[in-house]
Amino acid sequence: MADKAADKAADKAAPDSARRSERARRAILDAALELIGEMGYPRLTIEAIAARAGVGKQTIYRWWPSKAAVLLDAFTAQGETPEGGEPALPDTGDLEADLKLVLRGAVDQMNAPAYDLPARALTAEGLVNPELGAHFVARVLEPGLRLLAERLRAAQEAGQIARGVDPDVVVELVCGPLTHRWLLRTHPLSHDYADAVVETALRGVLKR
Amino acid sequence: MADKAADKAADKAAPDSARRSERARRAILDAALELIGEMGYPRLTIEAIAARAGVGKQTIYRWWPSKAAVLLDAFTAQGETPEGGEPALPDTGDLEADLKLVLRGAVDQMNAPAYDLPARALTAEGLVNPELGAHFVARVLEPGLRLLAERLRAAQEAGQIARGVDPDVVVELVCGPLTHRWLLRTHPLSHDYADAVVETALRGVLKR
Repeated sequence: MADKAADKAADKAAPDSARRSERARRAILDAALELIGEMGYPRLTIEAIAARAGVGKQTIYRWWPSKAAVLLDAFTAQGETPEGGEPALPDTGDLEADLKLVLRGAVDQMNAPAYDLPARALTAEGLVNPELGAHFVARVLEPGLRLLAERLRAAQEAGQIARGVDPDVVVELVCGPLTHRWLLRTHPLSHDYADAVVETALRGVLKR
Repeated sequence: MADKAADKAADKAAPDSARRSERARRAILDAALELIGEMGYPRLTIEAIAARAGVGKQTIYRWWPSKAAVLLDAFTAQGETPEGGEPALPDTGDLEADLKLVLRGAVDQMNAPAYDLPARALTAEGLVNPELGAHFVARVLEPGLRLLAERLRAAQEAGQIARGVDPDVVVELVCGPLTHRWLLRTHPLSHDYADAVVETALRGVLKR
């Protein structure tokens, strides 16, 4: 009897504790994203995240080693890279039009504070912290790059891209310049620029 | 007489003090570059730079607002961007060969720790610190990008590049992918890759 009662108490305690943990986890992730919008990454601290989330600092350190690690989970939990996989890229048969649509979307994303602030901070941190950088690239960037490569390979198989061209090089030829402008702020990042990059990159790549 | 003696003392003191300042400044800049090689940027502190340079922390704070600002001056004082202007880019008349030479050189530089460590740290800092980022881009990146644009414009004037092409877009088309690989470490950064980027970017740009 005593054992059964104890089991019952444990059964009841475990889901409650799991629910509490999940609530705390969500509050921490939400706080990290809110605070980066309010104070910027350099001034963001674990203390500030804990205060906003209403948890102790130790709760955060039990689950994450650093503010960058919290932010990476917060950012990816936003649904930027859904577990169910990325939606496929448009394939209307017109590669140039499809790529322009995709890259204009990327420009809009890079210019939106809700993407720009955390993604820029995580990129910056990843540059000097290779382990975090590898996680960021694998979780945030690579799914999209893979879809672009698949779209280009399909175009090559359909005979729209010259045989001698390496689709993986073309992926970086269109994404590299946008990333360069986004991160380094060398010039304005606009739809016109996305179009110019696609047109110039595809000039010798497409069979006309 | 008394005035003249005071003037003389001031004359003597000023150069000595200027020499001492210049010695301290050099020691601080050298210490910043040494320490980033030894401990990496995240662990670098103003305290560590002061200790290595044999000066007080206040001496550093009198001249620079942050460790990033010290590092930017240290990096540019290395002669990466000489005040006398950059050397011109090769112009053998063969644009593809010339660009490959330049981009292979850029790859070697990005792969060399003496460039990679400070330039990567300054890029990372500039991503989340727009004022420092603008200084870094203007002092370190733009001189080289301008030379590339001039080389491409010369090729267009010589009739080697199709009229409809914007040379400034081509600059970013060749530099963006290299910077992307260098900073994000998505794939190895090699001479072969530099060649592939130049070849693919120029396919539709060059008149054949």
